[in-house]
Amino acid sequence: MTTTRLLTSRSADAWGQLLLGCHTAGLPRDTYFEICERDDGYISGYDAVGFFAGPGDWPELDRWAFTRFRGRVLDIGVGAGRFAVPFQDGGGEIVGLDVSADTLDVCRRRGLRETFLGTVDDVPQSTRFDTFLLLGRNLGLLESRDRGPRLLSTLARLARPGARIVGTGMDPYLLDGAQHTEYLAQNRRRGRMSGQMRLRLRHRLLVTDWFDYLFTSLPELESLAEGTGWQVAEVERHGPEYGVVLTLG
Amino acid sequence: MTTTRLLTSRSADAWGQLLLGCHTAGLPRDTYFEICERDDGYISGYDAVGFFAGPGDWPELDRWAFTRFRGRVLDIGVGAGRFAVPFQDGGGEIVGLDVSADTLDVCRRRGLRETFLGTVDDVPQSTRFDTFLLLGRNLGLLESRDRGPRLLSTLARLARPGARIVGTGMDPYLLDGAQHTEYLAQNRRRGRMSGQMRLRLRHRLLVTDWFDYLFTSLPELESLAEGTGWQVAEVERHGPEYGVVLTLG
Repeated sequence: MTTTRLLTSRSADAWGQLLLGCHTAGLPRDTYFEICERDDGYISGYDAVGFFAGPGDWPELDRWAFTRFRGRVLDIGVGAGRFAVPFQDGGGEIVGLDVSADTLDVCRRRGLRETFLGTVDDVPQSTRFDTFLLLGRNLGLLESRDRGPRLLSTLARLARPGARIVGTGMDPYLLDGAQHTEYLAQNRRRGRMSGQMRLRLRHRLLVTDWFDYLFTSLPELESLAEGTGWQVAEVERHGPEYGVVLTLG
Repeated sequence: MTTTRLLTSRSADAWGQLLLGCHTAGLPRDTYFEICERDDGYISGYDAVGFFAGPGDWPELDRWAFTRFRGRVLDIGVGAGRFAVPFQDGGGEIVGLDVSADTLDVCRRRGLRETFLGTVDDVPQSTRFDTFLLLGRNLGLLESRDRGPRLLSTLARLARPGARIVGTGMDPYLLDGAQHTEYLAQNRRRGRMSGQMRLRLRHRLLVTDWFDYLFTSLPELESLAEGTGWQVAEVERHGPEYGVVLTLG
């Protein structure tokens, strides 16, 4: 009996069930973990309580980003609503978008009024936003050399004049450890971007499909944005992590 | 590329490296996780900082167990020395035994003077103890219907007169959730004990081999002890978890 064979027969929403379980249980520490597996076998964990943290407990980079929301906001990959709920509670106008119905359920239980189930490609063309959020390292949703520019172009079409993207990401070249250096090199040999992480999330018996999640250097990010209308207007670095504001040129 | 194929080519000490990494890094929270995979794909996490907790932060069951150590003690599966270090520091005489050299390295760095690398079968027959510890649910090391009585018999041979085993375990029939009920039923169909968990630990790129870890009801534990010289003398229950003292009849 191998784990892989059994797991691939399940397609339930590991990520949403993790957040829903953690929320329903009253956010106990040391009980719900985001367990993330990379396709070289590298595995990592993170206490899911962190996805519910309030602004006072956020890392500095998140607080930096939070001050940069303007107008009507689309939170892409809203998760448990860590940014969306306090922004709405402070009088802001924000829509939480996610492909996971369970995460949107969590957001609504936490009081978020506007949610959208789907990807940015599913958002009606008549809908417009002033700010697009790619937080919690969700610049990773740029996925790949092909998908990144397409996602940015979609956001440009949904943008009001003067719109911005506020995102956080990770510079893969600043990751510590031979295991990461080797992974990056292997990606390049396979024609992928260095920081194109192939991941899946696991929770209890559930597992997501494999997906690409992209870590880029800032020059790589600028290169992905070329021709999409967006350009990097502001940068905030914290070790290998960074925050950026992109604006329409 | 499948995860399983890559992982099985590695035999390094995931558990020891986890504890060593966590200790070396200064016990940061939310950074080092024990990630445990069951052979049906069920996965769970636990912040490794808990393995270094001092008596003030222990669950009640561990504090109950700690008051029951007597004389010269053998801590079986000593891990990071959570019990052994404070017991020694309080003037107690204790040997930390583990099959992981890295965990013993951690114990020595934390000041534990006596360590033994191997299983109880490797302990010289001339060595005798007053107390054997199977804590942190290490009654699980009884493994199976076959291995359990053999382990207990080995401990009887290493016992001084009046010796005891102090252990904690988990009643598998009190575990919540259909995923566990189904696993127990599947075990029975395969001729295994209900709570015979087939597990492996993962850390970063490392993985242990699969091993059996046994959860038993108290009647099952009594049945495993039959004919080994040991019998259950004291029981403390906390939900599905319990502590026991076994003495030589």
